[in-house]
Amino acid sequence: MRVFGIDCGTEYTGWGVVEVDDSGNRQRLVPIAAGAIKLNKKDKTPERLQQVYVDLTGLILAYEPGIVAIEDVFFAANAKSALKLGQVRGVAMLAAASCGLHVAEYAPLSIKSAVVGYGLAAKEQVQFMVARLLDLEKAPEPADAADALAIAICHIHTAQTLLLQGGR
Amino acid sequence: MRVFGIDCGTEYTGWGVVEVDDSGNRQRLVPIAAGAIKLNKKDKTPERLQQVYVDLTGLILAYEPGIVAIEDVFFAANAKSALKLGQVRGVAMLAAASCGLHVAEYAPLSIKSAVVGYGLAAKEQVQFMVARLLDLEKAPEPADAADALAIAICHIHTAQTLLLQGGR
Repeated sequence: MRVFGIDCGTEYTGWGVVEVDDSGNRQRLVPIAAGAIKLNKKDKTPERLQQVYVDLTGLILAYEPGIVAIEDVFFAANAKSALKLGQVRGVAMLAAASCGLHVAEYAPLSIKSAVVGYGLAAKEQVQFMVARLLDLEKAPEPADAADALAIAICHIHTAQTLLLQGGR
Repeated sequence: MRVFGIDCGTEYTGWGVVEVDDSGNRQRLVPIAAGAIKLNKKDKTPERLQQVYVDLTGLILAYEPGIVAIEDVFFAANAKSALKLGQVRGVAMLAAASCGLHVAEYAPLSIKSAVVGYGLAAKEQVQFMVARLLDLEKAPEPADAADALAIAICHIHTAQTLLLQGGR
């Protein structure tokens, strides 16, 4: 299973690809790649959204994941920032759909629980645990890339739990 | 000038194309086409967004407008509905950008002022005036299509005012 995680943001949109390696004695999470799409504040919104769409589509096609995972509804400070975040999120989901992939959505609480074991964990704890779980020497940067990897890890853990619960 | 107006919504996304006819003695607004993209509630969000994107891109390519006009930030009841509306809005702006078109944004107050002459006009007044201004026998339906035509008219009026102010 190879998962493409996306952490949407109006300035940086993080992305991270994680794979499950079942070949050894114990299952291992393998980091494939991660990064962040930095949007130029000088660009107008449609151009910024186009950049997110083109970049994400290119990355999804390049890394050939089986599924895309994304953070669920973010409780923004106000309606205006929620609308702006929604615009980026819409384009990210469209990129996945355009590549024929299903999109799994996870609440921030689920992501933190899956990675740190505690739903109200601090941002730094998430980054630290992402590095630990993926056997990286240091936390991936920028933080948006680490968050995207956390979302991908959350999907892998959730899928495995569902699989176990299904008795298969 | 041919304008493609879009009224974003999570259930219906209205669209309307209006052209300015300068050939006669007096300038005339010509309705070219209007309609609404109805989203299937049973579809998942990425599929719905893909429908909006594919339909809007097809319509923009078919009607060959010179510009796309869209309603500016909508003050949603809460952050969750703002996020959902933002998703549709992001995809609509992406459709315009993908077709190489500029996107003009207008606040609800400006749209109502441009069409009814009163920023706090009721929805029915907007629909009535859209029909009057476009010389239609009755208000276009659904209301989302009329709203999209109102946005297109708002752009035409604003562009003309700017032109006059520029002394050109």
